[in-house]
Amino acid sequence: MKFCAELICIGNELLIGKVVNTNASWLAEKITGLGGNVRRIEVVPDELDEISDAIRLALRRNPFIIITTGGLGPTYDDMTLAGVARALDVELEVNEKALEMVRSKYASMSLEITPARAKMANLPKGGTAIANPVGTAPGCLVEFAGTKIVSLPGVPSEMQAIFTRSVAPMLEAASGGMVFREASLVFQGIPESALAPILDEVRKRNSLAYFKSHPKMYEGVPLIEVHISTTEASKEKAEEVVRKGLLDLKEAVVLHGAKVLKEP
Amino acid sequence: MKFCAELICIGNELLIGKVVNTNASWLAEKITGLGGNVRRIEVVPDELDEISDAIRLALRRNPFIIITTGGLGPTYDDMTLAGVARALDVELEVNEKALEMVRSKYASMSLEITPARAKMANLPKGGTAIANPVGTAPGCLVEFAGTKIVSLPGVPSEMQAIFTRSVAPMLEAASGGMVFREASLVFQGIPESALAPILDEVRKRNSLAYFKSHPKMYEGVPLIEVHISTTEASKEKAEEVVRKGLLDLKEAVVLHGAKVLKEP
Repeated sequence: MKFCAELICIGNELLIGKVVNTNASWLAEKITGLGGNVRRIEVVPDELDEISDAIRLALRRNPFIIITTGGLGPTYDDMTLAGVARALDVELEVNEKALEMVRSKYASMSLEITPARAKMANLPKGGTAIANPVGTAPGCLVEFAGTKIVSLPGVPSEMQAIFTRSVAPMLEAASGGMVFREASLVFQGIPESALAPILDEVRKRNSLAYFKSHPKMYEGVPLIEVHISTTEASKEKAEEVVRKGLLDLKEAVVLHGAKVLKEP
Repeated sequence: MKFCAELICIGNELLIGKVVNTNASWLAEKITGLGGNVRRIEVVPDELDEISDAIRLALRRNPFIIITTGGLGPTYDDMTLAGVARALDVELEVNEKALEMVRSKYASMSLEITPARAKMANLPKGGTAIANPVGTAPGCLVEFAGTKIVSLPGVPSEMQAIFTRSVAPMLEAASGGMVFREASLVFQGIPESALAPILDEVRKRNSLAYFKSHPKMYEGVPLIEVHISTTEASKEKAEEVVRKGLLDLKEAVVLHGAKVLKEP
């Protein structure tokens, strides 16, 4: 079964356009590659009500997993876990395992625990601390009504390290071996509006593949990239679906006089 | 008055991580610069129900403007305006002005109108076509219960051209001259957890400024960038708020033995 995922990215820096949300695209690519289906990405400000509201709405859609990024640090506006707790209507409490993780990180830098540092060990009641191999703020996992809520730091290196070590294995188990495959063709000499009816025909003969056209410019020349993808129960099946889609599309578009500029 | 904005970005390519959502960060930066407050960014798949659901939820929060990106083109999975129409419970209908825009674009390429091309002129009833100076799909403006819903293409050059020419002037008028200003300081030699209580103090003395810390690594050395921003009724006031925040913060952090690596 393809599992569903939602991402909630927390941070005013994303909402003022200071930071491009590469955490979302990185996670989306990894989750898709693991056989999952990212249904929604939301960016919300560093505000308790907004965070808990976004989590509550996501929970109503019953995804397998909700991943939050950002807001786990020591400063006043790091309030993701308070938002998770509020969404689930549970208390935030000191998690002994998390506190031990934070304490030993700072001990290794000869620094003691302060209130700002201890704050990073406050988890929603019932939550599990996830070790952060490259930073100080632990991640957190809470389960609610069949959905896993995983909170990761916003610093990309920390987010990626925790995901790779602790979250990816959960998702691999959940996907039951579903495999994602993709390929692209780039055409020249056909406008997207002329490609549209061709794509409709090719789609009908390739119902397991998903086709998406992306108009582009390259040195002033209009091109169209068509991206073909699928998630199937085996590598062989997924590759066959993409290969057949590629061949059918190429044949149909070339018949209309377009040139293939790039193929896999 | 600072006006509120929400962005809804439509496209499976964003949800599989194939494309980084630079449309959202570009728009967020422009809107913030125009004195607006982007409250939420959502990414949803190319599916009618998901698009209309996201628009309905955004409308409930009564923003001044909702901007959608993507899904205005000629292919089967371009369905943003159908999603807007469904959210507002109105019909999609041929808009004569939009049809004239599409027709004259294709006429200039010696191409005639086909069903796929005509589809781009189907707007929600009551909608207004917005000219696309660099592509074929017109943008669309619909007003509902005090909120403007503006739909822009997903191709960045087209989205940017329409925004700059037709949307930015609307927002400038709405902001009534509100001005955004920002600046950053980069510190070395202080961990974020030690900065946190200092930031709390400085914040209290600078309630009009927003301070956000961003831990970073530069060639293996941990640094912290603190970003200070505000939106005020005049350029002078906004600059004064940021300047005072910068000075107070710098003084407080340097007292704790940190070094300022970069300042405006």
